[in-house]
Amino acid sequence: MDTAETLWADFKRPIANADDYLASLRGRRMNVFFMGERVPEPADHPVIRPSINAMAETFRLASERPELGTVPSEIAREAINRFLHVPINPGDLVAKHEMQRELGRRTGTCFQRCVGLDAIGTCHSVTFDIDAKHGTKYHERFLKFLQRAQAANVVIGGAMTDPKGDRSKAPHQQSDPDLFLRVVKRDDKGIYVSGAKMHQTGAVNSHWLIFMPTMRLTEADRAWSVVGAIRVDAPGLTYVVGRQTNDTRIVDGGAMDAGNAQFAGQESLIVFEDVFVPHEHVFMDGEWEYASSLVERFTTYHRSSYVCKTGLGDVLIGAAASAAEHNGVEAASHIKDKLVEMTHLNETIYSSCMAAAHQSKPVASGAYLNDEMLSNVAKHNVTRFPFEIARLAQDIAGGLVVTMPSEKDLQNNEVGPLIRKFLQGRDGVQVTDRMRILRLIENMTIGRNAVGYLTESLHGAGSPQAQRIQIARGMRLDEKKARARRLAGIVQTGSK
Amino acid sequence: MDTAETLWADFKRPIANADDYLASLRGRRMNVFFMGERVPEPADHPVIRPSINAMAETFRLASERPELGTVPSEIAREAINRFLHVPINPGDLVAKHEMQRELGRRTGTCFQRCVGLDAIGTCHSVTFDIDAKHGTKYHERFLKFLQRAQAANVVIGGAMTDPKGDRSKAPHQQSDPDLFLRVVKRDDKGIYVSGAKMHQTGAVNSHWLIFMPTMRLTEADRAWSVVGAIRVDAPGLTYVVGRQTNDTRIVDGGAMDAGNAQFAGQESLIVFEDVFVPHEHVFMDGEWEYASSLVERFTTYHRSSYVCKTGLGDVLIGAAASAAEHNGVEAASHIKDKLVEMTHLNETIYSSCMAAAHQSKPVASGAYLNDEMLSNVAKHNVTRFPFEIARLAQDIAGGLVVTMPSEKDLQNNEVGPLIRKFLQGRDGVQVTDRMRILRLIENMTIGRNAVGYLTESLHGAGSPQAQRIQIARGMRLDEKKARARRLAGIVQTGSK
Amino acid sequence: MDTAETLWADFKRPIANADDYLASLRGRRMNVFFMGERVPEPADHPVIRPSINAMAETFRLASERPELGTVPSEIAREAINRFLHVPINPGDLVAKHEMQRELGRRTGTCFQRCVGLDAIGTCHSVTFDIDAKHGTKYHERFLKFLQRAQAANVVIGGAMTDPKGDRSKAPHQQSDPDLFLRVVKRDDKGIYVSGAKMHQTGAVNSHWLIFMPTMRLTEADRAWSVVGAIRVDAPGLTYVVGRQTNDTRIVDGGAMDAGNAQFAGQESLIVFEDVFVPHEHVFMDGEWEYASSLVERFTTYHRSSYVCKTGLGDVLIGAAASAAEHNGVEAASHIKDKLVEMTHLNETIYSSCMAAAHQSKPVASGAYLNDEMLSNVAKHNVTRFPFEIARLAQDIAGGLVVTMPSEKDLQNNEVGPLIRKFLQGRDGVQVTDRMRILRLIENMTIGRNAVGYLTESLHGAGSPQAQRIQIARGMRLDEKKARARRLAGIVQTGSK
Amino acid sequence: MDTAETLWADFKRPIANADDYLASLRGRRMNVFFMGERVPEPADHPVIRPSINAMAETFRLASERPELGTVPSEIAREAINRFLHVPINPGDLVAKHEMQRELGRRTGTCFQRCVGLDAIGTCHSVTFDIDAKHGTKYHERFLKFLQRAQAANVVIGGAMTDPKGDRSKAPHQQSDPDLFLRVVKRDDKGIYVSGAKMHQTGAVNSHWLIFMPTMRLTEADRAWSVVGAIRVDAPGLTYVVGRQTNDTRIVDGGAMDAGNAQFAGQESLIVFEDVFVPHEHVFMDGEWEYASSLVERFTTYHRSSYVCKTGLGDVLIGAAASAAEHNGVEAASHIKDKLVEMTHLNETIYSSCMAAAHQSKPVASGAYLNDEMLSNVAKHNVTRFPFEIARLAQDIAGGLVVTMPSEKDLQNNEVGPLIRKFLQGRDGVQVTDRMRILRLIENMTIGRNAVGYLTESLHGAGSPQAQRIQIARGMRLDEKKARARRLAGIVQTGSK
Repeated sequence: MDTAETLWADFKRPIANADDYLASLRGRRMNVFFMGERVPEPADHPVIRPSINAMAETFRLASERPELGTVPSEIAREAINRFLHVPINPGDLVAKHEMQRELGRRTGTCFQRCVGLDAIGTCHSVTFDIDAKHGTKYHERFLKFLQRAQAANVVIGGAMTDPKGDRSKAPHQQSDPDLFLRVVKRDDKGIYVSGAKMHQTGAVNSHWLIFMPTMRLTEADRAWSVVGAIRVDAPGLTYVVGRQTNDTRIVDGGAMDAGNAQFAGQESLIVFEDVFVPHEHVFMDGEWEYASSLVERFTTYHRSSYVCKTGLGDVLIGAAASAAEHNGVEAASHIKDKLVEMTHLNETIYSSCMAAAHQSKPVASGAYLNDEMLSNVAKHNVTRFPFEIARLAQDIAGGLVVTMPSEKDLQNNEVGPLIRKFLQGRDGVQVTDRMRILRLIENMTIGRNAVGYLTESLHGAGSPQAQRIQIARGMRLDEKKARARRLAGIVQTGSK
Repeated sequence: MDTAETLWADFKRPIANADDYLASLRGRRMNVFFMGERVPEPADHPVIRPSINAMAETFRLASERPELGTVPSEIAREAINRFLHVPINPGDLVAKHEMQRELGRRTGTCFQRCVGLDAIGTCHSVTFDIDAKHGTKYHERFLKFLQRAQAANVVIGGAMTDPKGDRSKAPHQQSDPDLFLRVVKRDDKGIYVSGAKMHQTGAVNSHWLIFMPTMRLTEADRAWSVVGAIRVDAPGLTYVVGRQTNDTRIVDGGAMDAGNAQFAGQESLIVFEDVFVPHEHVFMDGEWEYASSLVERFTTYHRSSYVCKTGLGDVLIGAAASAAEHNGVEAASHIKDKLVEMTHLNETIYSSCMAAAHQSKPVASGAYLNDEMLSNVAKHNVTRFPFEIARLAQDIAGGLVVTMPSEKDLQNNEVGPLIRKFLQGRDGVQVTDRMRILRLIENMTIGRNAVGYLTESLHGAGSPQAQRIQIARGMRLDEKKARARRLAGIVQTGSK
Repeated sequence: MDTAETLWADFKRPIANADDYLASLRGRRMNVFFMGERVPEPADHPVIRPSINAMAETFRLASERPELGTVPSEIAREAINRFLHVPINPGDLVAKHEMQRELGRRTGTCFQRCVGLDAIGTCHSVTFDIDAKHGTKYHERFLKFLQRAQAANVVIGGAMTDPKGDRSKAPHQQSDPDLFLRVVKRDDKGIYVSGAKMHQTGAVNSHWLIFMPTMRLTEADRAWSVVGAIRVDAPGLTYVVGRQTNDTRIVDGGAMDAGNAQFAGQESLIVFEDVFVPHEHVFMDGEWEYASSLVERFTTYHRSSYVCKTGLGDVLIGAAASAAEHNGVEAASHIKDKLVEMTHLNETIYSSCMAAAHQSKPVASGAYLNDEMLSNVAKHNVTRFPFEIARLAQDIAGGLVVTMPSEKDLQNNEVGPLIRKFLQGRDGVQVTDRMRILRLIENMTIGRNAVGYLTESLHGAGSPQAQRIQIARGMRLDEKKARARRLAGIVQTGSK
Repeated sequence: MDTAETLWADFKRPIANADDYLASLRGRRMNVFFMGERVPEPADHPVIRPSINAMAETFRLASERPELGTVPSEIAREAINRFLHVPINPGDLVAKHEMQRELGRRTGTCFQRCVGLDAIGTCHSVTFDIDAKHGTKYHERFLKFLQRAQAANVVIGGAMTDPKGDRSKAPHQQSDPDLFLRVVKRDDKGIYVSGAKMHQTGAVNSHWLIFMPTMRLTEADRAWSVVGAIRVDAPGLTYVVGRQTNDTRIVDGGAMDAGNAQFAGQESLIVFEDVFVPHEHVFMDGEWEYASSLVERFTTYHRSSYVCKTGLGDVLIGAAASAAEHNGVEAASHIKDKLVEMTHLNETIYSSCMAAAHQSKPVASGAYLNDEMLSNVAKHNVTRFPFEIARLAQDIAGGLVVTMPSEKDLQNNEVGPLIRKFLQGRDGVQVTDRMRILRLIENMTIGRNAVGYLTESLHGAGSPQAQRIQIARGMRLDEKKARARRLAGIVQTGSK
């Protein structure tokens, strides 16, 4: 089997920019399927391509706005893409969140690189902790891996969510042990893992994947307690790209019907069949007692990463304002009031995420971690407010968002002129501009990028109830009860 | 040109049932376009057909549950389809709303027949009022038309929303006079109308259309003050069916990907070019001062008709409960609590609509009209609660709603077995059942029928602000202020 | 001990009107306490009197608007006060709710007579059911009691909520058996009951009380399964009137500071010590299996009775509109929009309650009962919307609601003129009118009648969770799941 | 008239601690009125005293937790109370907000010292800006004043809100020119001001007041464009302390009935009649064009200061949790869920305020100012979430919050034992502890401190609409529209 050395051999030359990144995705031998067909070259697939474009923006931003998209390397040389950087002070997390919002604004969708970024931060500290207790060498291995990734400027994806089967059972209790990813055999070169990961963001567009357990484990789940890094084209991997709302619009209707023709997100089911991982790329192997802190740290990072949705919110607010302008109603008080409400909700999300970054604290490895309570609060707001923002955007836009003819009708000789005549809005507004803005609102509220703006906002980084459980854990009721008793004039006697 | 007599000649034999209705739609010469192509036979178009199926359920219900779907005729003979009946007591409106909820449950979408129904109720009383003042014969004409429609058991659609152009201008002020439908010429046989109607629900699936003005008019808008009935295949009409979210799923992915393969809604842009209407089918012609009461009555009827969405809510609550069951989490307290919340919101809508029916009052013609305040309140709740119900459904369902592979992947020899393995939920649940339920939730919350369940709930029968204006008009602040002053101990002196 | 005959001897002459009612409350020997002191004559106590005034409005309405406040007697003679009438068709419940809203508008508070009214309706049908199964004579006894009450035109209060102690235990499991009211001894004349009832609305202002169990009971709770009627001045009863927010304002500040000087609610703790009940006044005695239906029917009636809060809402909307007018901002779009929102929420509550009345169904005794689902939905909205209406009222009113000087300051020679100078609003508005309206808003949102408008709206007729449990019971998930499966294309195979 | 020198002569010895502060309030000759009576010594007035106690906590905190309550002096010597410190970096604002939350937790009410603190920050930069343009010496004067205040460790209050009269008119347009505070004469020693300030927080408990204009002014309002500092006992000042909900409970019911007997807020109407201000204490005098930036900076500071309400939220959450424990229901899932929701909302407010501090920016004088958008967003959340937190607290607590007997009843020989018997909750819970907690919840949700927790949260630092106007100003729609157009594929042509 391959060694770490040989596995990295293909990445000698660092990826220089967005075009270079696009080139790097071609010619790989991956088992990718979409809608029942094998996809030989994802970068050429019209439905998948917009998700690659969105990922490419992370490189473009690094070129265009290096202060936001990169971090100066400690070891002189080149700046490092911020998506490959472990945060070592609050400012790093603040800058990360500003970058995420900006990429949300640029793409109007999920640019798919945050899971890997947050996996890096998590592995940095968890490997450190395991080593401190067990005398293992995971942290050193991880740093070596990370340096190679930084040098090559590759995209690292993160893979966490297992299929889970019956949710009332632990991994070792499942009727099919593969329902959680696990070590199925091992030799002196490395380990072999089987199972699957679901809802994997941008996996097909990555170069490497870090796989991690998805929940608290027990001793009996030792085989499932595994973290490692693999190439996305490792033998044994199969990808099934999920369907998204209106995914085929770009094909059947064209750019206008797509709403946002350039950018989209991507989620896939990844199946692992005896995938080999050399020891150098194994970062946890049986230390089940660290699964819970790994999951908690990852979600603490990742829940704040949902600040990206405020970038999408910016776009949607702008689109709604444009639609109002096209209709000639931008000065109506109820329209202005709705735009204010959308902004208020959007900035509330932003403030929760930013507070969680500013109030981050270091863990033993020296990495900084967002404030846990605030990060959960931030994400919990993300599970609510984008839905209301989207509703208000549709309110402002009007029903045409869902009843508008296709761009193909516009091109038709018989009905095209009729559409141009009857869809005219305020004088001076081009009918196609009006249609494009309405299609963008459709795209973000009930179309392809509503997947990312709405449903993913609910479930990504943990569903609403997961945040509530964490908030419950952190809410320190005893302290609060003591404060209440004191003000109520209750003389404290003994415990609690 | 045709007379009313000849126009009705094709409808001698009453439509007996759902199959008969389907047959009645074939062989008509209509100019229907969809996605840039002429659709020769809409009933055979895979994307349009589900909307026809939904309309057909209004006939099926009449056969299967005549007590709900029909009204005994006053003139002995056959029962009349309830969609062709003018309500003459509160019980009629109550039964109408129960029918609408049941059709929502049966189809999970907009069955498209309420606009016409509410147009009938509106014309009954407005023609009566005009005649009473002007000595015209509109009411008699209308009754004759309605009797023919009842006898033939045809589908009548209603057409109200004009393109409007610059919304700050009246019809006669628009740079293009066609932006509101108007009379362009007249002769001794009848009138000719030009213009367009937008967002027309189920028009292609109807036999006749009643067109009406869309807002309060002034004397200068006399030419735009016109109401009439036309056959949907009248010369001069062109239909452009609008695109809906995921409309092509049924074609590109198949029944499972469609989520609800059988039923969908339909909205189209209808262009009128010199369409002839014989005098017998003209129900208002220049009486501009009745436009506002026509619009108010129509919206009062139609806003309560949105009780249909509680039928969709029933389906979505059931789907969410099924998804929870498939995941083995139906007993979790937060899941049960979310189902309760969904039900509470759904029944709140129902109660507002039903109260508006029970408290209906007669107008001069003898027709009963829903309580105006309550009908506006009902619709205003419809602009909010389905969005929260949909959010909760997605919350319960999980992220797979938007990341699931296509049915075609399931059929693929390579990845099909992998999907079956990894998408298995609780023991005893078929993977395809699980997938189908998730696709239905997608369909109703971010797919094709979300168009009807969400966006149409916002804008149909008037956007939220339209209800707020009506609520403001009806809120009788003077009475309320008097009550407050009395309790505050303010001695009343003189006026207000 | 007294017999029913002797107990009714004092009520030979029917109460003719509000003044007569006030007179009827004097000279009774009751153990009433308030703020640590025995209250010899509650009608003369300045803090208690406003609650009596509110109750008296139920008589005044009967005189002034008999069509609303009374029901024609079936047995010719005099009309019966509607608060003593068992509803025997939907119209009765509709009229009841209209009466309740009107009394809410007249008093701006809880007029305290609905618990007794709903107890009457409940006992009518539950006694009928018990007799049907057990061959007992409770229904006949109850009808006799009710006829006497109707003839005497007395106020009947209802007493349900026991102290409950440890809420995780049944009555027979409590360390103190008195924590639920129970039969402590019995002889051939009647039974003796001990225990307590909490939060008793208007008890001191009533003539009779019907006591009932508060929850589902088991066979071991037989002694606690008791329903009966007693005079409020029965030996063994003690009343402790609870403190309300700002209850002493009327004393320490005067009428203006009180906000609503005339009307208030009243709740007391009633302790029962060996209170005798003659058999003729016992309506359940050990039939524990009927406790749950008794509670469900009572709450079904009583939850809809919260329609009264829409009358309070009318007052508060009127007060807010007046405050805006005094400030000269009534034309501001955001003010108008808030008044619309308040109205929308208020009418949504109304519509839920009214729908629950219109869709009432008869039970075996012939009494009509509100629709159970809708009644729970209605009350659940009452636990939410008044809080938002109150918040909006304060928003419109401005901070002066909580920072305003006392009426006594206004009367002070030094500062009175300063207050008149600086509290002047728009020209032409009297400063005292402005102050009175602000005090009324204080009264209803953070003062004495906020107790009834807010907190009681939460907990009266059962706290929010109680409604959620009932909604869960009635939401028929199996039917809804079947609808979802059908539309999802799942072929039904056998059961669920 | 007095010079600055003589005015400061009484403050030679710095206030050392809370007791010293209390002593400093005695023996002053102020015209203070409450409920129609002159209050000779406010510190001895039972209703006013709790507000002084709350203010005293700002000194106690400085002694007990100097790292939070003080700032090391730049000029060596003693640390400065943080309430007298101009923030000169983000950390200062962060620490300020932590201090405010802690004081909220300690007092459960408004401790009244933030207006003065935020006035100091505002004057620092606005005087700097005026001087820079006009060559005046306001900044130097202000620094001198501030240094004296810091040395003396006095309490500075801020006075902003004018009576305003007819809100549609500017100061110079009012029929009574005193409705806005203004310069009425001037001599070589100083100026004389007349008018009034309303809703003045803690003024009676302060040593000095800084008065400022309340809104944007025009050139015609030059006389009203005045900022200065005065002693609270300056000749010509009259204070009328406003009534608060349940203010007299502490007198008529006692400590238990008060709910929070120790702490409360305070607001008063201050009337100015020819109050002299020596030139050294005048910080703006006619520079009307700076009124708007003064108001904007003050509100930007002050809106974030509402982070204090999260300290009150902590207390209320703790009280609700205690009440649940007393009832034996703390493990019920719906109770836990409500506590989580309360915490989520409370921490959302916190995060908005903290983000506004962390992202503060310097202005020309070197002072740091909270981020304006985030500060407005923070306060806007404060106008909503405490109301929902309070509703949930009442939901958990149960109806006894508003129906409970007085402490005096508990002390009564006849009913005291009955109350102890029937108000017993879970075994082991003292009845008085249960009652005290419920009284605290009453105090904070519908009692005296609800004034601060709810109504003041709405209107303090500007009513909701004021924040919406600021959010509208800062929402940069043009940028957002540009982003939307780019993603919609609209080719930019020319401007906007």
